[in-house]
Amino acid sequence: MDLTKLREQIDAIDGQIVRLYEQRMEISRQVAEYKIETGKKVFDKDREAQKIRSVKSMTHNEFNSHGIEELFEQIMSMSRKLQYQMLTEKGSIGRLPFIGIDRLDMENARVVFPGAEGAYTQAAMQQYFGKDVNNFHVETFRDAMIAIDEGSADYAVLPIENSTAGIVSEIYDMLVEFENYIVGEQIIKIEHCLMAVPGTRLEDIKTIYSHPQSLMQSSRYLQEHAAWKQISMNNNAFAARKVSEDKDSTQAAIASAYAAETYGLEILEKGINRSSTNSTRFIIVTNQKIFLKDAKKVSICFEVPHESGSLYHMLSHFIYNNLNMNKIESRPTPDRNWEYRFFIDFDGNLADSAVKNALRGLRDEARNMKILGNY
Amino acid sequence: MDLTKLREQIDAIDGQIVRLYEQRMEISRQVAEYKIETGKKVFDKDREAQKIRSVKSMTHNEFNSHGIEELFEQIMSMSRKLQYQMLTEKGSIGRLPFIGIDRLDMENARVVFPGAEGAYTQAAMQQYFGKDVNNFHVETFRDAMIAIDEGSADYAVLPIENSTAGIVSEIYDMLVEFENYIVGEQIIKIEHCLMAVPGTRLEDIKTIYSHPQSLMQSSRYLQEHAAWKQISMNNNAFAARKVSEDKDSTQAAIASAYAAETYGLEILEKGINRSSTNSTRFIIVTNQKIFLKDAKKVSICFEVPHESGSLYHMLSHFIYNNLNMNKIESRPTPDRNWEYRFFIDFDGNLADSAVKNALRGLRDEARNMKILGNY
Repeated sequence: MDLTKLREQIDAIDGQIVRLYEQRMEISRQVAEYKIETGKKVFDKDREAQKIRSVKSMTHNEFNSHGIEELFEQIMSMSRKLQYQMLTEKGSIGRLPFIGIDRLDMENARVVFPGAEGAYTQAAMQQYFGKDVNNFHVETFRDAMIAIDEGSADYAVLPIENSTAGIVSEIYDMLVEFENYIVGEQIIKIEHCLMAVPGTRLEDIKTIYSHPQSLMQSSRYLQEHAAWKQISMNNNAFAARKVSEDKDSTQAAIASAYAAETYGLEILEKGINRSSTNSTRFIIVTNQKIFLKDAKKVSICFEVPHESGSLYHMLSHFIYNNLNMNKIESRPTPDRNWEYRFFIDFDGNLADSAVKNALRGLRDEARNMKILGNY
Repeated sequence: MDLTKLREQIDAIDGQIVRLYEQRMEISRQVAEYKIETGKKVFDKDREAQKIRSVKSMTHNEFNSHGIEELFEQIMSMSRKLQYQMLTEKGSIGRLPFIGIDRLDMENARVVFPGAEGAYTQAAMQQYFGKDVNNFHVETFRDAMIAIDEGSADYAVLPIENSTAGIVSEIYDMLVEFENYIVGEQIIKIEHCLMAVPGTRLEDIKTIYSHPQSLMQSSRYLQEHAAWKQISMNNNAFAARKVSEDKDSTQAAIASAYAAETYGLEILEKGINRSSTNSTRFIIVTNQKIFLKDAKKVSICFEVPHESGSLYHMLSHFIYNNLNMNKIESRPTPDRNWEYRFFIDFDGNLADSAVKNALRGLRDEARNMKILGNY
């Protein structure tokens, strides 16, 4: 048989599939109306499992049995999405675990940032909350998380990712450990400077102090000075302060120009980080389950059990709901060898039907699913 | 109308969809036979795009138009997979960019590892290639990559991931930079020890030397000794060697028990890394595009352009081909602000039809897709 004939047959079949699909969605709409009236739940796990078994049993070979399973998982996910959408339209949004707010109360906020005067986190805080915000600083990222947890601050500002060096893995791990939530983000351009006590020459330097991320971001420059000893500090503002206090011209720090000014250091080199477009994304974290009503990005994390369900099943919830993931990170699950915790950022709002549909499915199949925030 | 009646209607529609799906696959089989005879290619991008436009035009609302698009992308992906499978069955596997081999030539191999005597990489090498393997060591990960690239060694052994601390990001970045390929992996249990010159007491210690990953893995223990200065070394065997050579009892190293023995150091604490199940995965890298015929895991990387195609589209190729991803990492793309390069490990062999189908689709939609190895 020739290709044209075969393709005509395929076209005829496809026309029928489209017609049946639209009929099925129309009946799904009626089912949704019935469910809204009677208060029945949208996701009926047993009914869906039974449906999959039933359609698979109609197929005539292994390849088709598998294909039909995939196809009906997609079709049922779409039906469910339609039903969630109708529920939302009829005003029965469903109680969300997060409380929607119109805006953050910036005026009365007390904000904590890790580091010291002159830290990039301080710059991020001032840009997000304004220069005059009521604030204090603590030594470590963990101290900032604890301050939020205890309520001694309303919001914390923390670095989560750098465009060159990648994620700040410690923050990812703490977002799981603490019951704190992301409510905003702020991107700050990073320009690292090499600084020392005034009068220092490059050839005097023996030791460099900075945060490990800043050292990584400046690694190309530092390779040209391989003899310099690199010492890690919790924050590069601390590094600048230490060099300033020690008044030792064998020491230098890598930090911002603002830190050099703050601690009276001389800038020996500007822009020593690798990329001219280097920037860091900071998150604003709080201890309440709130989200801005116009929020556009959802961050979640979950674990994938080794035994049963797979990452493949988890991600199908995003695919079938047409949700665009911006970012996926895997981090090792503590004390479980080679099991991962996944962190996903995707476009959407917790009140969207597609988002609800995806989260509902994930909650059922993944382990320890947590919504980290909608912002 | 009541729920039972509605569900009966849905069941009837579903029966018809299954029947049409099987008919479509049967015609796809005939198309494949025609293509095999005439040597035509399986993936016809224009025909698929035209088909999507055509089925979308048959729908009556936006929701269905979108659903039908998704549904037919899945159906066409399955048809393609069937055709690749038949091509393979008929012996026309298609020339693979990688050459299948039965086993690595371990006896005549010359192997390079980064570090020094007593490094964990050495242990990984010995476990994979045997104790008597012809080998030499270099200072950095990059030096090992260059040795392979130049052909001065046949294989390099490099750490890629630790079960507690996560990925070794430098290695991921270098797998893109160099045209070297993964041909094997070896997992080694990690037990870090604190070591110093014999007679040293814990209270003498002021400075700790080790690799940053080892410092991270031992962070809980090191928090109890917050006054100790932490200095990063390229390898923890170097750290042990330095402490041994300096004979300074204010210094200590974190390294393996074997390193302590090698450099005559006394072990002050055993197992100071966080988890009792801590292990590191090492990869075996070579400069030839080869893969073991019984290989079970494929590693690839690709970039997702900001503008058009999205991560969502890329991942659908895994979902529709039923390929299980074990691991997804995102790393910043150098000099491109907030664009990511994704590293994915999934189960499969380059000769599998599902794998070919997924890679074919990815190559078309992603930017700079690279197969890192099949092992």
